[in-house]
Amino acid sequence: MTSARTNSPDGAAGFPPDLLVSLDRAGGRGLRLQLEGELRRAIRGGRLQIGTALPPSRVLAHELGVARGVVVDAYAQLAAEGYLEARQGSGTRVRTSQPADAAVAGSAAPPRDVGPRLLGGIPDPASFPRTQWQRHYRAAIAGLPTATVAYPDPRGEATLRAALARYLGRVRAVVTRPDRIQVCGGFTQGLVLVCRALRARGATHVAVEDPCFGYHRELIANAGLEPVPIPVDERGIDTGELARHEVAAVLVAPAHAYPTGAVLAPARRNALVEWAEATGALVIEDDYDAEFRYDRAPIGALQGLRPDRVVYGGSVSKTLSPMLRVGWLAAPEDLVSDLRREKLYDDIATGTLDQLALARFLEAGDLARHLRRVRPLYRRRRDVTLAAVARHLPDATASGVAAGLHLYVRLPDECDERALVRAARQRGVLVEGTARHWSDPAAAPPALVLGYGAAGEAAIEQGVAALGDAYAAVRTATAAA
Amino acid sequence: MTSARTNSPDGAAGFPPDLLVSLDRAGGRGLRLQLEGELRRAIRGGRLQIGTALPPSRVLAHELGVARGVVVDAYAQLAAEGYLEARQGSGTRVRTSQPADAAVAGSAAPPRDVGPRLLGGIPDPASFPRTQWQRHYRAAIAGLPTATVAYPDPRGEATLRAALARYLGRVRAVVTRPDRIQVCGGFTQGLVLVCRALRARGATHVAVEDPCFGYHRELIANAGLEPVPIPVDERGIDTGELARHEVAAVLVAPAHAYPTGAVLAPARRNALVEWAEATGALVIEDDYDAEFRYDRAPIGALQGLRPDRVVYGGSVSKTLSPMLRVGWLAAPEDLVSDLRREKLYDDIATGTLDQLALARFLEAGDLARHLRRVRPLYRRRRDVTLAAVARHLPDATASGVAAGLHLYVRLPDECDERALVRAARQRGVLVEGTARHWSDPAAAPPALVLGYGAAGEAAIEQGVAALGDAYAAVRTATAAA
Repeated sequence: MTSARTNSPDGAAGFPPDLLVSLDRAGGRGLRLQLEGELRRAIRGGRLQIGTALPPSRVLAHELGVARGVVVDAYAQLAAEGYLEARQGSGTRVRTSQPADAAVAGSAAPPRDVGPRLLGGIPDPASFPRTQWQRHYRAAIAGLPTATVAYPDPRGEATLRAALARYLGRVRAVVTRPDRIQVCGGFTQGLVLVCRALRARGATHVAVEDPCFGYHRELIANAGLEPVPIPVDERGIDTGELARHEVAAVLVAPAHAYPTGAVLAPARRNALVEWAEATGALVIEDDYDAEFRYDRAPIGALQGLRPDRVVYGGSVSKTLSPMLRVGWLAAPEDLVSDLRREKLYDDIATGTLDQLALARFLEAGDLARHLRRVRPLYRRRRDVTLAAVARHLPDATASGVAAGLHLYVRLPDECDERALVRAARQRGVLVEGTARHWSDPAAAPPALVLGYGAAGEAAIEQGVAALGDAYAAVRTATAAA
Repeated sequence: MTSARTNSPDGAAGFPPDLLVSLDRAGGRGLRLQLEGELRRAIRGGRLQIGTALPPSRVLAHELGVARGVVVDAYAQLAAEGYLEARQGSGTRVRTSQPADAAVAGSAAPPRDVGPRLLGGIPDPASFPRTQWQRHYRAAIAGLPTATVAYPDPRGEATLRAALARYLGRVRAVVTRPDRIQVCGGFTQGLVLVCRALRARGATHVAVEDPCFGYHRELIANAGLEPVPIPVDERGIDTGELARHEVAAVLVAPAHAYPTGAVLAPARRNALVEWAEATGALVIEDDYDAEFRYDRAPIGALQGLRPDRVVYGGSVSKTLSPMLRVGWLAAPEDLVSDLRREKLYDDIATGTLDQLALARFLEAGDLARHLRRVRPLYRRRRDVTLAAVARHLPDATASGVAAGLHLYVRLPDECDERALVRAARQRGVLVEGTARHWSDPAAAPPALVLGYGAAGEAAIEQGVAALGDAYAAVRTATAAA
């Protein structure tokens, strides 16, 4: 056991001299996780108060007798979780608005689930770049042309469409122009605008991956179209099977199918656009988390292969936050005016200020900077999740590991997915099964979506350990039955 | 002719000592309009540069030999137009971002219409309270609970729904609770959510006022329902005629029918809710500009009479700006979950930060303050519009004058509305006819919607004068034909 009184050596204000940080070198947990845990508890418990300056990492590392990197990483993790903030020139301090405090003060009801939340598709809430976003929003208001304080253009603000066309071309190899971009309320509204435009043209059926994000299948049905499920295997959607159906469009996530994480194989990418070309059907490309690639080069958007048959969709929901509700479509020319009409007859337009703030955010390079900052964070969380699954759920197989914000964790056939999810929730772990994402939930192989975007490494470790416990309990109950 | 070199008497920086302000006391134009015009030209022409401090009103009034109120009013008007800004403690200065400059710098294409824009339903763009809105947005980001940086509640943020329930109860006598409020992208999306919810229940027909805001009729049709036009007279919608049709709902604007400005008579208010009660139909109340009342006490919302049969809708589009895209519904209990579903399957939710900023804006009393500030502005513009119509269009009759942001200007039967609108545009005046708002445009009596919300008094005077000229030209052409 190593311990240190973390006296602030330079007399910086407020770091309590009696704060005891204890690290257990004999135990199984890494020194960084221990240090993180100690500091987190100290902040939560009020021992480290708001605004308190932490010792420089070099100093604390020396006192604790650990490598400096251990302290640097622990500080970074707690900053990402919202407990600490690092300011240029003034070191690391306890953040003024704490995640826990704020949640209680700001909402009428406390959050229902207090344990680890391992849900798919949600980025780290503490990493949302509040300061930069606020800076660009303020600039957007200050620079707002008075003529713009009116009903906005249904297609979106010209500056945002120009910024998006540049960004998507550069980062995702999307072939488009500002006048082919439709700004919308997240990719969700983009998809529904496409569905309504197709329906107005007489379309009745839209193919979807099976499994796919179940909410999208429901959304398509709610828009009055019949979703036609097409099997997905480890090479993505079965294009041979797709060709046997008459559909007006197909919704695919070629870079990272949900929930399995399959990547559309090169031969099938070509087959898909050739099918679209031959039949006149539309490919709707959901590029929902393509910005997160860990172990391989990114795959360009499918749209680049045939921009006149693919409508490309994305949003800031995974890169910044789903609370912003801003997304975009890059559409074939002959769809542009129909999308505009559907937007006009839905909510007229997306809010101007959010659009102008995002345009500035993109043009200033802040999205790229933000992604450089969070990618390593997610990669580490992915690694922690993989290691924890190997340790606590040795019977399971994780896949979809090269990208995104979640793992697909396949369970043994005899495992009861619903019972496991229930048992996990009883242990305070919020996790989801995958049955809902299959067109026939009863035929779905038992599996979990393990989202690591919004949970810290300690929470992941704790959550997967509890999952292992839940799994053992469910297996015992099944065997006994 | 009175003139003054407006030397800044207290040596305040920047007001050019050689700026000549000339007022012609013999001419017909008021001194304030002249002073406004001189200052506007000086700012536009660059003689008064950005950031320049203007002399205190007392000083300038003394130099010009006019009443101080003349200068105070001229400053206020130019501030409302975005040329000047008044700061507590530092006097009045030329605003950093100018309407004209900004419009050119901020958008790719210059505005098409450079003359007066007398369009209905648009509030004063220069009055948008940038500073207060920015302050509340910043506070919303700073106070954002980390748990909220996720997918938002489709119904809307709890704090906004609570603030809206209080505001609507107090200001519009709406009887509701936070859990009956649905936040949406302007009233537009609220209306479309109601339409889709009704359609999902099997509804096929929705009654509308004839005339009504034509876009709403189109939107209802686009949502797959058939609009059924019911005549509006000077007492509002004909409830006797309505009762002869089978419809699932009726869309009405009881406080201020568009475009005629008719107010629903008390007997008909009762007849309408009794009809809804008896038939099980829904009343959709569009309360679009009820905050602007000039010559009489405000009329409470119809919804208060029968909250279980009326869905009330409003937005910030007329009070703050349509660019924000935030509106709300106060719905009967049995509609709440259907509206939530339609919102979820449309764009999931409205952006969190805008919602939280608006909640703070409302709770801080800033909307009430803003309305106190702009009501006199609009009232003066209404009066200027009425006087200008009497002077330049003596054959026309203006109505709907007690409320809102526009006048309904009925033209003689033989006037060709479309030719007049065209002739006005040729003279640089952007104005709209009313034919589009009637179910049968060919049967519409010739009339104009004269919007005074977004145009300064000088622009109104100039625009209506040009309209008078256009009217004379069209009448001559008609007579010659």
